[in-house]
Amino acid sequence: MKEIKVPIGVSARHVHLSQDDLERLFGKGYELHPHKPLSQPGQYAAEEEVEVIGPKRSLKLRVLGPTRKNTQVELAITDAIYLGIQPIPPIRDSGDVEETPGIKIRGPLGEIEIPKGVIIAWRHIHTPKDMAEELGLVDKQIVEVKAEGVRAVVFENVLIRVSDKFAWEFHIDTDEANAAFVKNGDIATVVFEPVKLLQKT
Amino acid sequence: MKEIKVPIGVSARHVHLSQDDLERLFGKGYELHPHKPLSQPGQYAAEEEVEVIGPKRSLKLRVLGPTRKNTQVELAITDAIYLGIQPIPPIRDSGDVEETPGIKIRGPLGEIEIPKGVIIAWRHIHTPKDMAEELGLVDKQIVEVKAEGVRAVVFENVLIRVSDKFAWEFHIDTDEANAAFVKNGDIATVVFEPVKLLQKT
Repeated sequence: MKEIKVPIGVSARHVHLSQDDLERLFGKGYELHPHKPLSQPGQYAAEEEVEVIGPKRSLKLRVLGPTRKNTQVELAITDAIYLGIQPIPPIRDSGDVEETPGIKIRGPLGEIEIPKGVIIAWRHIHTPKDMAEELGLVDKQIVEVKAEGVRAVVFENVLIRVSDKFAWEFHIDTDEANAAFVKNGDIATVVFEPVKLLQKT
Repeated sequence: MKEIKVPIGVSARHVHLSQDDLERLFGKGYELHPHKPLSQPGQYAAEEEVEVIGPKRSLKLRVLGPTRKNTQVELAITDAIYLGIQPIPPIRDSGDVEETPGIKIRGPLGEIEIPKGVIIAWRHIHTPKDMAEELGLVDKQIVEVKAEGVRAVVFENVLIRVSDKFAWEFHIDTDEANAAFVKNGDIATVVFEPVKLLQKT
């Protein structure tokens, strides 16, 4: 077993929009206005917010940019319960929206009903490609992460995602952060079995 | 190490009232009306609700009965953030309210400001006395609890509480339940080192 430290990134509920959906909510030819860069390179919190309308209540959600191929609403389970979404949407890796529930989204210039795209994010570690190779971590590998403190927790079933566009960071949602009483920027420990790969010669 | 199964009890935010505070909120000589028995013997959810008023927002909280010596407001961290309580109230064992924040509480007949009593509950296992003796568990012992499933988690720092008035149950709040994607009545596994006590002869 190997151990390595990782900074925690806490994701509050948010939405990714496709360019089509962005234009239906904000107007033809609309472009997002970056408000604050996120820790993952090229990603940002936009100035724009939308209202996500559940069966019981609605919530304002920050739009994250840039736009993506598919619109996706990422909620904590607490948020899904608050909105009245039943059953609770599945725990999914980002982008994996097959057979997930849809929802109504309202923007300043329109309202849409997405047929699918509401997920609870599967906790995961953004791993830069060179770091993954060095540590013996592969894309979609499952590892454990320990968070210390008064509410110390071992998160099992943590998904490794590898890309040369990623910064090393452990992403959890607000329920997971509050259960462990950790916040953005706190340090946790990844525990894993390195995968041996055939060395290129 | 020893392992034993335990049913999970999920506590949503709630309030315990002293008889004095109950009367200041609901009227002189008022008595709680039991609505639904809870899993711990003699405890019940009352019909009564109060409004807890934080710096930013307020929330309706169910009153649990019977009345207690001290008024105590139990929140999930998500609730404390929603109400705008800063810093986050400490993680405490029930009844341990020294140096905790106070809050404004509104009932149908009055409003009070408690000087202390807002806590985030320390996760704990209600352990009947005879079962504790049989298993080698002692009051205030710290154990681990594993919850299985897609969001499998090991909760460390779980407090054992022993009483002949308790039913065997692992109590967590809504943040902890949602982080592990478990619900009321699900089964978890306690992992512990039995304590050897001097046998009475």
